[in-house]
Amino acid sequence: MDFSTKLNALVARVETALDAHVPALPAGAPAGPARIHEAMRYSLRAGGKRLRPVLALAAAEVAGGEAALASALPVAAALECIHTYSLIHDDLPCMDDDDLRRGRPTCHRAFDEATALLAGDALLTQAFLILGEAYAARPVLAARLLRETAGAASGRRLVGGQMQDLLAEDALASGRAPATADDLEFIHLNKTAAMLEASLVCGGLAGGLDGEPVENLRRAGRHLGLAFQIVDDVLDATADTAALGKTAGKDARAGKATYVCLHGLEKARALAAEETARADDALRALPGDSSFLLFLAGRMLARKN
Amino acid sequence: MDFSTKLNALVARVETALDAHVPALPAGAPAGPARIHEAMRYSLRAGGKRLRPVLALAAAEVAGGEAALASALPVAAALECIHTYSLIHDDLPCMDDDDLRRGRPTCHRAFDEATALLAGDALLTQAFLILGEAYAARPVLAARLLRETAGAASGRRLVGGQMQDLLAEDALASGRAPATADDLEFIHLNKTAAMLEASLVCGGLAGGLDGEPVENLRRAGRHLGLAFQIVDDVLDATADTAALGKTAGKDARAGKATYVCLHGLEKARALAAEETARADDALRALPGDSSFLLFLAGRMLARKN
Repeated sequence: MDFSTKLNALVARVETALDAHVPALPAGAPAGPARIHEAMRYSLRAGGKRLRPVLALAAAEVAGGEAALASALPVAAALECIHTYSLIHDDLPCMDDDDLRRGRPTCHRAFDEATALLAGDALLTQAFLILGEAYAARPVLAARLLRETAGAASGRRLVGGQMQDLLAEDALASGRAPATADDLEFIHLNKTAAMLEASLVCGGLAGGLDGEPVENLRRAGRHLGLAFQIVDDVLDATADTAALGKTAGKDARAGKATYVCLHGLEKARALAAEETARADDALRALPGDSSFLLFLAGRMLARKN
Repeated sequence: MDFSTKLNALVARVETALDAHVPALPAGAPAGPARIHEAMRYSLRAGGKRLRPVLALAAAEVAGGEAALASALPVAAALECIHTYSLIHDDLPCMDDDDLRRGRPTCHRAFDEATALLAGDALLTQAFLILGEAYAARPVLAARLLRETAGAASGRRLVGGQMQDLLAEDALASGRAPATADDLEFIHLNKTAAMLEASLVCGGLAGGLDGEPVENLRRAGRHLGLAFQIVDDVLDATADTAALGKTAGKDARAGKATYVCLHGLEKARALAAEETARADDALRALPGDSSFLLFLAGRMLARKN
């Protein structure tokens, strides 16, 4: 199986896991209004690259093959729930006020603001419920995965990055100092890299890794996160809305600090390649065959949306 | 120590635990923008009755005295984080659009909408992070507490109850059928009772209970939750804004289905007493001295705000 075929197969397994762990009609006591579950699944099923869960599965597989990969499926689903919640809330009118996400109306456009707010809340909660339920027989692993995912999603990291991003925009809008390269790195280390680190780390942990290899996965996630964000900035400056599946050129029009405006297009491209090379070094240091993870890193650098 | 003094002492311990588990400047890697932590603590420190954490501590103490109570402090703090997040999001303009909470400006009035949204997200996440960190040495307990808290806060329960509440209001606003007594019970079993059940259950579990006593705690929480909500409806209809610390008479003006409008004031009061009596029965069935829990149940019935 070549790597593209393998990637498609993993994405298909992620979809199945998401369907199983975030059902349309939850079992047990009255599920209540269908609308909340519909909204959760609307955003969850909007597709996307499933990058975080695929990274988790690939890291698990390096650790222990198919059995390890299967044991990472629930945490892979949980990671995608957290990512999807963050997109739903980020798209809300009081945040980025976006109408389009992955080429479809955003959750609050398809439903309404209150439903989107609640769907995000429920997806975030569901992520942790999945960990508690799916790893009930492996409580040490459950607690470890909980610390990694909740830490990455916390006010210090994912939410802290979002907050800093908003503050930088406010400073810009009110004519105060624009974000510096350091500010930009803080935002992306937390808004983007935190969840990529958690994805690789949780996959490795669920697959049975610990110690140094897990720290190598964390390091790889950090550099992939920075590379990912630089590529995002390059695409925002160069691609069109149709190819991107979201509104292109938005950052530039808003005068937002990006790697492209701070460093120029060519330097930004070089920085993305450099961060990817650092991630590759960390991945090559893993015990086991990391060639599929390296393939994924290469695709992230070369992506067009 | 009489029970009122004891209650004050427990509330003081909850405040200390909240301060410890949701610090102004989190330790470790750059904490990022202070604003997110300020907003989290602004709402968390608005006071309130600390009902959920106090119930957790009282349930733990029944199980095993002071040592048990101390071991329930982190989950008590986590429960208050979840409760506070739900209030912040519930107060947002797209939800109840409230300016006042516990006699102070709501989070989005004191800060702004985006910050309030993120502060709620971060508090919800922090609750689960607390469980993962504070119970790291007791992973079986950590995983069990995770299932109980995430289950109670999930789209099936807390968030599902909120969704149903919104749908009932929309139906009312558009002239469709008003909520029935069954709808109202569903809303309150999930919007209110779920977290009270989880508080008693998690306290009992952290204190060392399991099996039948835990199910008695769950039953007590369910009935206390219904009683609590009926009392809320009675207070909304009879108290003034100053005494309540939030806008009074809002439900009646909105024509919202409440126990008072469905059953009348006297019948609603009788129903609250009846649910409290059922909770008392479940509490009396616990092994150990449940007299303080019974005192708390009595105060909830007699409260004025």
